[in-house]
Amino acid sequence: MSLTRLVFGRPLANQEQRERKIGAFEGVPAMGLDGLGSSSYGPEAALTVLIPAGAAGLAAIGWIMAPILFLLLILYISYRQTIRAYPSNGGAYTVSKENLGTNASLLAAAALMIDYVLNVAVGISAGVGALTSAVPLLHPYTLELCLAILALVTIVNLRGTLDAGRLFALPTYLFVASFLLLMMIGIYKTLSAGGHPAAVVAPPGLPAATEAVTLWLLLRSFAAGCTAMTGVEAVSNGVSAFREPGVKYGHRTLVVICGVLGTLLAGIAYLAHAYGIGAMDQTQDGYQSVLSQLTAAIVGRGVFYFVAIGSVLAVLCLSANTSFVDFPRLCRLVAQDSFLPRAFAFVGRRLVFSVGILYLAAAAGLLLVAFGGITDRLIPLFAIGAFLTFTLSQAGMVSHWRHVIASGTSGRERQKAHGSLVINAVGAVTTGTALAIIVIAKFIEGAWITIVVIPCVILLLRAIRGYYDELAVRLHNDRPLQLRRSKPPIVLVATEGWNRLTDKALGFALGLSPDVVAVHMTKEGEAEGDEEERSLREKWATDVEAPARALGLRPPRLVTLQAPYRRIHVPLLQFVEQTQVEHPSRTIAVLIPEVMKHRWWQHLLHTHRARRLRYALLRYGGSGLIVMNAPWHLEEPKIEEALVPEEVFLAAAGDKQPEPRKEAR
Amino acid sequence: MSLTRLVFGRPLANQEQRERKIGAFEGVPAMGLDGLGSSSYGPEAALTVLIPAGAAGLAAIGWIMAPILFLLLILYISYRQTIRAYPSNGGAYTVSKENLGTNASLLAAAALMIDYVLNVAVGISAGVGALTSAVPLLHPYTLELCLAILALVTIVNLRGTLDAGRLFALPTYLFVASFLLLMMIGIYKTLSAGGHPAAVVAPPGLPAATEAVTLWLLLRSFAAGCTAMTGVEAVSNGVSAFREPGVKYGHRTLVVICGVLGTLLAGIAYLAHAYGIGAMDQTQDGYQSVLSQLTAAIVGRGVFYFVAIGSVLAVLCLSANTSFVDFPRLCRLVAQDSFLPRAFAFVGRRLVFSVGILYLAAAAGLLLVAFGGITDRLIPLFAIGAFLTFTLSQAGMVSHWRHVIASGTSGRERQKAHGSLVINAVGAVTTGTALAIIVIAKFIEGAWITIVVIPCVILLLRAIRGYYDELAVRLHNDRPLQLRRSKPPIVLVATEGWNRLTDKALGFALGLSPDVVAVHMTKEGEAEGDEEERSLREKWATDVEAPARALGLRPPRLVTLQAPYRRIHVPLLQFVEQTQVEHPSRTIAVLIPEVMKHRWWQHLLHTHRARRLRYALLRYGGSGLIVMNAPWHLEEPKIEEALVPEEVFLAAAGDKQPEPRKEAR
Repeated sequence: MSLTRLVFGRPLANQEQRERKIGAFEGVPAMGLDGLGSSSYGPEAALTVLIPAGAAGLAAIGWIMAPILFLLLILYISYRQTIRAYPSNGGAYTVSKENLGTNASLLAAAALMIDYVLNVAVGISAGVGALTSAVPLLHPYTLELCLAILALVTIVNLRGTLDAGRLFALPTYLFVASFLLLMMIGIYKTLSAGGHPAAVVAPPGLPAATEAVTLWLLLRSFAAGCTAMTGVEAVSNGVSAFREPGVKYGHRTLVVICGVLGTLLAGIAYLAHAYGIGAMDQTQDGYQSVLSQLTAAIVGRGVFYFVAIGSVLAVLCLSANTSFVDFPRLCRLVAQDSFLPRAFAFVGRRLVFSVGILYLAAAAGLLLVAFGGITDRLIPLFAIGAFLTFTLSQAGMVSHWRHVIASGTSGRERQKAHGSLVINAVGAVTTGTALAIIVIAKFIEGAWITIVVIPCVILLLRAIRGYYDELAVRLHNDRPLQLRRSKPPIVLVATEGWNRLTDKALGFALGLSPDVVAVHMTKEGEAEGDEEERSLREKWATDVEAPARALGLRPPRLVTLQAPYRRIHVPLLQFVEQTQVEHPSRTIAVLIPEVMKHRWWQHLLHTHRARRLRYALLRYGGSGLIVMNAPWHLEEPKIEEALVPEEVFLAAAGDKQPEPRKEAR
Repeated sequence: MSLTRLVFGRPLANQEQRERKIGAFEGVPAMGLDGLGSSSYGPEAALTVLIPAGAAGLAAIGWIMAPILFLLLILYISYRQTIRAYPSNGGAYTVSKENLGTNASLLAAAALMIDYVLNVAVGISAGVGALTSAVPLLHPYTLELCLAILALVTIVNLRGTLDAGRLFALPTYLFVASFLLLMMIGIYKTLSAGGHPAAVVAPPGLPAATEAVTLWLLLRSFAAGCTAMTGVEAVSNGVSAFREPGVKYGHRTLVVICGVLGTLLAGIAYLAHAYGIGAMDQTQDGYQSVLSQLTAAIVGRGVFYFVAIGSVLAVLCLSANTSFVDFPRLCRLVAQDSFLPRAFAFVGRRLVFSVGILYLAAAAGLLLVAFGGITDRLIPLFAIGAFLTFTLSQAGMVSHWRHVIASGTSGRERQKAHGSLVINAVGAVTTGTALAIIVIAKFIEGAWITIVVIPCVILLLRAIRGYYDELAVRLHNDRPLQLRRSKPPIVLVATEGWNRLTDKALGFALGLSPDVVAVHMTKEGEAEGDEEERSLREKWATDVEAPARALGLRPPRLVTLQAPYRRIHVPLLQFVEQTQVEHPSRTIAVLIPEVMKHRWWQHLLHTHRARRLRYALLRYGGSGLIVMNAPWHLEEPKIEEALVPEEVFLAAAGDKQPEPRKEAR
């Protein structure tokens, strides 16, 4: 078994696609880690903004979490509708394209693509940051740990979304179970203590207030807390990963993610207030996250504490997985519309879009290396993309329902669509408002970078599409096949002396055309080759011209070319051009015999003259020139060498079964 | 002007070769830096071994330097003879090959190749070591400095030996002039002081003796001192670099190198003894080299001191140049005998053997990086190669003169040959003895590595020759051209849909053969392509089959291939194989239309399907398959794009002048 097989698994056939789809069980770990992980940093981010307001700030957490929970509910309901309306793929890109036009869809695509790349870098870096602050011994290896996790997530996703969903199920469900349990214990304790529970491990006291609770402070806290909602759109972008019926499994996954996330957000806000737990300054020694303080306050620092905090670390580290599931699927859709290179639409070895996965890994890896594994400065850039796509997606759905209403037949259908329209309209307005608040609140901190980068990405996508459009116009052929009884081509055979290669090539060339010219180039790199040329001419007269004349054929001419600057393709190109000028109505073909290399060391021992000639002729010879290669093998290859074991099996089966191909006539 | 042109100079034409040859003025810097540089570390190495013997050891320096000078004289006379006897190339490889057989020549080649690589690494590292001990500020940049000097010497030599000779003439002649002057001043002062001159700057006292002067100590000191002679063989290996008459310029260069080296060695030994200067422990603080102590003692630490010591540094740093002149020329000879890859015999852009230069730079660079720029541990490996080639070269010349005597006609000629034989025999015996002493004295320090590596290199050279021999036998063709009136090939045209590429390719294919099959492969990476296939079949019937039938031609078949594992070359290879089985007497040709890319970013936007198909067909399709490429350009290329300015000029001149090529008939 080769290393590739061990790491990436066996190649999967097209017909296995159905079995590779996921259900809700795998869907939550595959797409939900980003959303669930948000619960650990969203409330913390909101509380961090409130630090200067002291205890009064903590008291305001309810005023901040309530609209966030309301927004989450709106998002849940409207994404539910989106998934039902676009069962094959309901991502913001598709919804905007169908309802708002190309510009809006490119805006959504650019925002999502940037967000997914940032999510990988920031997610892994946040997870590793939490890990190294728990185990300071690991601190010097921050970047290495980040890259190792990136490699793990990349490899698992190259194996397929199903593998990722299964492998990451354990930490995901461990996180969900332990924090739901924690919330229940905490709420029970709070209620039984009449709202003022005693902490098992007392949290550090809140700092004294240095600022009043102003509207601006609340808005900034809200903007920061909105990061808790990133990842909610993931399911809608990845519906195509689910098995049939995709709507059902998409809905199930969405309900689990939103339900757990909402419960945790509400619970954390309630309990933080009850236990008097605020955010701490990360730059100070003795920093503890809100979740760590809360867990210790409710259950103390026992086994449960370490299991729960361990699962938070795992979820944070692996939250990048959501991007790895959605980004390649988004890029595939964009590539199918010719806004990205076509390779993004290629189905890879394991039936996932490998190019997108690799591109995402490379982009995030570069960010991690550039920032040394500490990506705090990227966080302000983060939520904008998510809320931009929320808004576009909702607005698109509004337009969608208007079309349904306009074209709907039954009254009941129209009434239903009216209801949906209202929900999406509320969603569009609220997420749009949240977006405006986030942009204003985070503008100076770095949000302006996103606002600069998005148009650049859109311009790039448009430029790519422009190239493909131009190519399509140039390649388009609306006339039927043009046939004229043309003369056979003039065949030039590149020779290096009289040997079996030349023999085989001349034989083939004379079978194609009566006009064959053997073109001998002096040995590459040799300044003089007169001696060699003379002996070749003698051989030519006896071994080529004589037998050709005996058969009544016109013997092939022998032409010798000199390369004064030892660049053998130059005189050949000039000779081709001259022949074209002399015979404007004829096609010119150059036949290049080539010794094929089967082992790596043979590449060091041969001079690759044939390959370089071919490249130069194809690149500079013009569209009128045909380049022919006559391979010559020291050992004849077997076709099995080109096959993976599965294909060998298919080929063997094909001998007995009907032909695996269809023919027209 | 492009960057390449600026750095490496304009390409040189074959006919400029004569003007690129060097004379003695450039010969001394080009080939002599290794030999001249030896004077700075040879005596120091001998004195270092004598440190434990204290003042008694210093007194013995005469006993060590005398046989070294005698050896140098023998080498001078015998290499003079060798150059005259082999005026085109008198290197140890050629002399051994002609007189002692292939095994001896490979031994010489292996020893020389290893020595040249070591010389580059050790020379540069020693020079930089001396520089950083003079300017401790530079110490942290040791490796960077080493690599920068390596890059400089590499680039200058890629520009040509003439450029290297001219550029490095200044430091070379400055070194020669300042040290000859220093010796004269020193000897004058010594003689006028009756043998006991007063030092301007007193050298540090000699350490107390801890060992007696034994024969073993003297032998070890002699073996260490013999490094002073490395580089003397350089001229004989590089005779082909000199302009005509090569013997004259070779002799002049040799006499300058040996004369200056001998004078310096004798002078240093005499003056070190007179001034009481011994070697110092390099690992101790305050270390000064023997040359530095001597210069300070004779003229003090004035301007002259800094000029002289500066020139030593430059000569040491640049001593690698000798390897860069000789190694590529040696490799070229070995490659012409098929013991090295053929690319080593290629004449590069500037009429030097660029592959050898680049290989040498890479090998030395790897050594420098592996040892962090401090290659002291490589020094014991060093002199063995030189003395092995000395001995082989002398022994070869003995055999040469015996042949001359056996076949010589005139008595005078035979008498002359007898004299030469005696000189070379003395040379062979003395250098052989020195080699034995060096191997014994340095065996444990590392000389054994050389003794292990040399046979491995020889085995590698023989294996390369074995491959080329096998290839020649397989390619050899002793029968005349085999012509049979064969049927035209079956042409398979790879299509991706009905477009201009397909149109052009089909037109060409139908001109070649009545048997044309269009092979459509479902879009790469797409699991299903049924829709697309149906529309293609419709177009095929109206746009291809109808016009072909109207002309009375057999319409080309359309075959669709499925790739269950999305590796499109696999079904095509299988189809080719099946066609071959069905038509064993016909040649199969596959025609691949290809959109050519002219700009780097186009490579990112295309999928390179044509290139990958071509590779797979050539690699696995067998010798019976012909692969044809039909290039298609978005903008037609101009042949001028492929030319360097000099070739454009030639092409323009060619329009008016007679054809630059010769034709047979």
